[in-house]
Amino acid sequence: MTGTLYGLGVGPGDPELLTLKAVRLIAQSPVIAYPAPDTGDSLARAIAAPHIPDGRQEIIIRTPMVAGQFPAHDVYDHYSKEIAGHLSAGRDVAVLCEGDPFLYGSFMYVFSRLAEDFPIEVVPGVSSVGACAAAAGVPLVSRSQVLSLIPATLDDEDLKRRIAESEAVAVMKIGRHLKKVCRILNDLDLSEHAFYVEHASMKNQKVRRLDELGDAIAPYFSMILVRHAEAGAGE
Amino acid sequence: MTGTLYGLGVGPGDPELLTLKAVRLIAQSPVIAYPAPDTGDSLARAIAAPHIPDGRQEIIIRTPMVAGQFPAHDVYDHYSKEIAGHLSAGRDVAVLCEGDPFLYGSFMYVFSRLAEDFPIEVVPGVSSVGACAAAAGVPLVSRSQVLSLIPATLDDEDLKRRIAESEAVAVMKIGRHLKKVCRILNDLDLSEHAFYVEHASMKNQKVRRLDELGDAIAPYFSMILVRHAEAGAGE
Repeated sequence: MTGTLYGLGVGPGDPELLTLKAVRLIAQSPVIAYPAPDTGDSLARAIAAPHIPDGRQEIIIRTPMVAGQFPAHDVYDHYSKEIAGHLSAGRDVAVLCEGDPFLYGSFMYVFSRLAEDFPIEVVPGVSSVGACAAAAGVPLVSRSQVLSLIPATLDDEDLKRRIAESEAVAVMKIGRHLKKVCRILNDLDLSEHAFYVEHASMKNQKVRRLDELGDAIAPYFSMILVRHAEAGAGE
Repeated sequence: MTGTLYGLGVGPGDPELLTLKAVRLIAQSPVIAYPAPDTGDSLARAIAAPHIPDGRQEIIIRTPMVAGQFPAHDVYDHYSKEIAGHLSAGRDVAVLCEGDPFLYGSFMYVFSRLAEDFPIEVVPGVSSVGACAAAAGVPLVSRSQVLSLIPATLDDEDLKRRIAESEAVAVMKIGRHLKKVCRILNDLDLSEHAFYVEHASMKNQKVRRLDELGDAIAPYFSMILVRHAEAGAGE
């Protein structure tokens, strides 16, 4: 009997935004894995911490984050083999993932390596998009409106075209791309319809209208929400 | 002291996908409101049912659903006044909302009517998009990929153009638009990259590759996921 691999979305940051299902599976799984930066603590583990029983075996997936680069494949090759060892030995493994596992989640790098060989269950989580909208008090989309999730890492032209196309957009992973995104929203005359949110649902949450943000340094976990049309307004 | 209005996302259908925060606020709120069809049961209430204490005052927001039409404004005018009465009297009111309140959620019709007069807290929930991706075992987007949420209610040309533009799309509210969406995906040569999901996370969940769906009747709560490029693949 092989173990089951669980990909658990732990939500945007507030430990109370964990789902009952994630809490149950964290408590049941003998092995817990989670991503962490090269040095320092894991956000995913911090979110789940109140629910991780003492003495669990833990796998820290150390992923060097170099600005503008994505985790090296060999990091995930290595940790996926370690996880596979536990699964082969019959132990369930819960991999914690900030937000939702299949929406820009790091879990998919483990999933793609193990999906053919082991039973996998993915538990969706609260995404940062809903959390940012809730924090800002901004209904995003209703009725027949289109919402696009757009990483700020795209180049100027691509970003501008895509922001212009949807009724509402969530520009994600702002970080060092803040000035570029602000310039584009200015060009599109959308700044006054935009909200900046960092660390949504966490103690250090910050919400500003974009035109009142001033000179700020945005962390990686920040987002700009833009609505061209008001959600809930008539068709 | 006025009461607080809570907009609670109760997730896609599985009662275990409620957040701890939603469970706590449901247990604490003396008044619980939720949408329901003209006749019949409320899905939002069914999801939250295990956590609603006996004897709570309940407000059933009956919204006639006519195919292709959205709830009449006077329905929400009426129920918002009833909710405002409780808030003015100092009673908190929790409004349950399938999925996430600010992503196509019915809560925003209450929010827009009461946001200026009462303290409101919105609690994000697991959206059907993440739930459908989890059900289908399909990582949706990673890295610099764009995801668009597109209601199937759009007209042919608009739908086709928007589906063609993003690396991944979630076509929502399929219902009677199934044939139209299938035809468009065929035209775009995307059918073999598409998955059909209905009632994600619920007991009657159904997942099919779109090219194996055959002649089906899609409920309103169904979705088609399409990926142009594989999530997690190299840039």
